[in-house]
Amino acid sequence: MDFKSFIRDVPNFPKDGIIFKDITPLLQSPEMLNKTTEALAQLVNGHKIDKVVGMESRGFIFGPLLASKLNAGFVPIRKPGKLPSTTLSETYDLEYGKDTLEIHTDSIQKGDMVLIHDDVLATGGTASAACKLVEKLGGNIVQCNFLIELTFLEGISKIEEYQAKSLLKY
Amino acid sequence: MDFKSFIRDVPNFPKDGIIFKDITPLLQSPEMLNKTTEALAQLVNGHKIDKVVGMESRGFIFGPLLASKLNAGFVPIRKPGKLPSTTLSETYDLEYGKDTLEIHTDSIQKGDMVLIHDDVLATGGTASAACKLVEKLGGNIVQCNFLIELTFLEGISKIEEYQAKSLLKY
Repeated sequence: MDFKSFIRDVPNFPKDGIIFKDITPLLQSPEMLNKTTEALAQLVNGHKIDKVVGMESRGFIFGPLLASKLNAGFVPIRKPGKLPSTTLSETYDLEYGKDTLEIHTDSIQKGDMVLIHDDVLATGGTASAACKLVEKLGGNIVQCNFLIELTFLEGISKIEEYQAKSLLKY
Repeated sequence: MDFKSFIRDVPNFPKDGIIFKDITPLLQSPEMLNKTTEALAQLVNGHKIDKVVGMESRGFIFGPLLASKLNAGFVPIRKPGKLPSTTLSETYDLEYGKDTLEIHTDSIQKGDMVLIHDDVLATGGTASAACKLVEKLGGNIVQCNFLIELTFLEGISKIEEYQAKSLLKY
């Protein structure tokens, strides 16, 4: 299945010199939406998953589709101030500055088998913070699962203590 | 099916005096994730849908699930500066100030049968802007589809020229 022909290169986005991998052509195709979900689920290789955790905003797209396919629940990780109930938060370094992610404290039960999903693995800061949040709540990370890995950014080094799988590498 | 027992009231969020309807308990349940998708799809009543359009961020959760169930593609509508390719934008009034939404110009083909989905219909500003964007690109709005309608905010009046359906009303 030629997934890459449905990923569009957009030069100079979000800033000069960066080539953005745009997944919207893939989302627009009913066939590719389903085949991508299936292929991402196959990366999990039959492991039992209780919760799929997806990061705001683009992790919300395939996260729930994966949860449904794997017969798991879906848990959103969001930017500060977006989740209404009691949250746990984790701050991490960006190239310039810092960012923070939040998760509902009642979203993961001790011993839950958790799949972390995001559309793109770039520098790995988001994925690493998500793993820490889940582990602090007592969840077990089964896998970090990505649609796209930008290998030259070496984000995989930030989550090397976990199993990580990506459908497409650039 | 008692969907409402999986929706949590969070008082004074995002500000004092507002009771927020939190859908995360529903998302966390594998059974409810699937039953909700099915119930939202049943609201469409068998109409052919080419594209499900979902609004950032929480419209990204059931939007793709609905698209998959209805054998349609998924199209994201996002806040300004998030979509990488050529966009059309629509600005609308908030209680205080204005907001803008964007859609990729190549995401809807002339004559596409479109389902607009968001988790909550509140004042109707977002849904109305989304409908305008889709129509400017030549799409036909089959239905505006919501998980929750906050009837006391009368958002339905802003989209009265379209068919609108909600799974749960408060």
